[in-house]
Amino acid sequence: MTTLSPPLVEPIRVGVALSDRSYDILIGRGLIASAGAEIARRLPRVRAAIVSDRNVGGLYSADLSRVLNAAGIGSVAVEVEPGEGTKNFANLEHVVRAVLAARLERGDVVIALGGGVVGDLAGFAAAIVRRGMRFVQLPTSLLAQVDSSVGGKTGINTPEGKNLVGAFHQPSLVIADTGVLDTLPPRELRAGYAEVAKYGLIDDPGFFAWLEANWRGVFSGGPEREHAVATSCRAKARVVAADEHETGERALLNLGHTFGHALEAATGYSQRLVHGEGVAIGMVLAHRFSARMNLASPDDAARVTAHLAGVGLPTELADIEGTLPDADGLMALIAQDKKVSRGTLTFILTHGVGKAFIAKDVPPAAVRDFLADSL
Amino acid sequence: MTTLSPPLVEPIRVGVALSDRSYDILIGRGLIASAGAEIARRLPRVRAAIVSDRNVGGLYSADLSRVLNAAGIGSVAVEVEPGEGTKNFANLEHVVRAVLAARLERGDVVIALGGGVVGDLAGFAAAIVRRGMRFVQLPTSLLAQVDSSVGGKTGINTPEGKNLVGAFHQPSLVIADTGVLDTLPPRELRAGYAEVAKYGLIDDPGFFAWLEANWRGVFSGGPEREHAVATSCRAKARVVAADEHETGERALLNLGHTFGHALEAATGYSQRLVHGEGVAIGMVLAHRFSARMNLASPDDAARVTAHLAGVGLPTELADIEGTLPDADGLMALIAQDKKVSRGTLTFILTHGVGKAFIAKDVPPAAVRDFLADSL
Repeated sequence: MTTLSPPLVEPIRVGVALSDRSYDILIGRGLIASAGAEIARRLPRVRAAIVSDRNVGGLYSADLSRVLNAAGIGSVAVEVEPGEGTKNFANLEHVVRAVLAARLERGDVVIALGGGVVGDLAGFAAAIVRRGMRFVQLPTSLLAQVDSSVGGKTGINTPEGKNLVGAFHQPSLVIADTGVLDTLPPRELRAGYAEVAKYGLIDDPGFFAWLEANWRGVFSGGPEREHAVATSCRAKARVVAADEHETGERALLNLGHTFGHALEAATGYSQRLVHGEGVAIGMVLAHRFSARMNLASPDDAARVTAHLAGVGLPTELADIEGTLPDADGLMALIAQDKKVSRGTLTFILTHGVGKAFIAKDVPPAAVRDFLADSL
Repeated sequence: MTTLSPPLVEPIRVGVALSDRSYDILIGRGLIASAGAEIARRLPRVRAAIVSDRNVGGLYSADLSRVLNAAGIGSVAVEVEPGEGTKNFANLEHVVRAVLAARLERGDVVIALGGGVVGDLAGFAAAIVRRGMRFVQLPTSLLAQVDSSVGGKTGINTPEGKNLVGAFHQPSLVIADTGVLDTLPPRELRAGYAEVAKYGLIDDPGFFAWLEANWRGVFSGGPEREHAVATSCRAKARVVAADEHETGERALLNLGHTFGHALEAATGYSQRLVHGEGVAIGMVLAHRFSARMNLASPDDAARVTAHLAGVGLPTELADIEGTLPDADGLMALIAQDKKVSRGTLTFILTHGVGKAFIAKDVPPAAVRDFLADSL
């Protein structure tokens, strides 16, 4: 158990506008300490199941239970193992049955206390217990705070692929306590930062330039961190509000992800390459491929590479330890990705920093040749 | 394989109005023969997974595959074991992974060919593969045609209870081939009939009176059968359109179900008491309890009992083979049912035939005493 410092300043509030399922994202240092009050204010008289992994749960679960209790919210704790391997059917059943065993009702709440794995798993459980319970996210990694906790995508992996099974299930509230990032392993913080940079690269060149100048504050925990998280959440909330079920514009959030997912699959979803690192390399590849297709200047690709490498992220296929499949092998993994529509490849390409777009008919042969030259 | 007779008359079309998720229910004899054309017309260029159980699949799966193929729809078959025990996490994973292994995409379709078990399981799989695929119901039992295939409730059971895990996922089309009911075991046909009678008891006294006069034609396969199925579907569609996610009026469909579920649980969801039989006894109990609470005339309870017993359905607790729990044991099972809201009991009670209503604050002690006197 740690000692929680109460928040010193008002949290930043970012609204996600989804008509009757609209919700707030609260961002600030020390917010776990006020989580009970914030939840109780929005969801009166609920009971809760706190889903967490052994690592994060050990740090914060007892504290969270205490502040919930102080706000009149009784809770049970459900623990899973840390790591991407946890996102499977067996753990889904485990969490679902623990929530049922606690006799929680439809109006009660599942709280995901952890990173993206816990958020995706607990959110999916909340989506299917009694055909949909309430759900609150307390993301404890940078990746989860700026990406996976916002937007309602939940799910698990199967041997057929990542996140191929799940539900759209919006939380009632997201509480991003930026203070918990202080204890995050540096590699994980960097991996999350790749998704922060992504929002600049998609459509906000000013934010990307701001990150180039201010990234050190994001890492060291200055007020730049809250600004970066809030700007990212605002960007994601805007896209999600416009396209909740990813029928169009929301696909822009996959910038770097088609290449990235293939690389994650190629490395067995192991510590050889974590998700954000795959996205970092994927974004560099997307910019370079766009330049090669004469869609963007090579200078933009170089600028993206320089910034991501500057913060310590991998940017080259050669940065991945061990051997990779050849270009055909990577193409097979790309084709397996769920962002395939009726046989044509959809990629997020770019006209330059902050000018990403959805390209629906990318010739697979051009991608293959590009990968062959990049390996 | 059987030989399919093509439909002789135009099917009856019942629309379910759910804005952008509206869909048709087609009702008629021989409709499996035109299923390929009907699906292809509404969902051009899809591929399909046909989910069925060994019994129903053996009769119709090859035929369905052939008519789909004739309409340009390629399909794979996924088989599960017959019986309520199939609705579990292991089979959900089995169906989900079979659909993924067939490389079906979001726009492709899962077809549930079978009774309520197959429909609930396949529908839930369709709801969660790629966060939601298309879904077509081909219900082959009377129960599924008039109840479970309409309305979008999908799900599985866990040791904690029935249907506690699932999703609301509307089909794109329901095709109710009334001819397939000819080969249904009489006991199963009777069980489904309990749900038909329910629609009369909820709010359509004229339909209940029609059933009292015409039930033999429903069982023997005269045109009364299509009329009864269509009237039932229209009633359910009306309620579902008004309250898709069961926040209000939809609860009326649970007439007889709170008692019924408790009895099913008490008999271990076995062949001692199938679902529709539990509903039949449950509806009789709901009418008798309403009379005891001076809400309705005892004559209505007697009339309901006479009709259900007349078609051969059980109507008394004594009609259930073997021993039952005592009143306290049954109350514990009722409390476990998901239609519990914050500790108070919600029952569907009635002011008489066709006058059911939602009673939110039923005193548990009164129910307990009533059960003690009924045992």
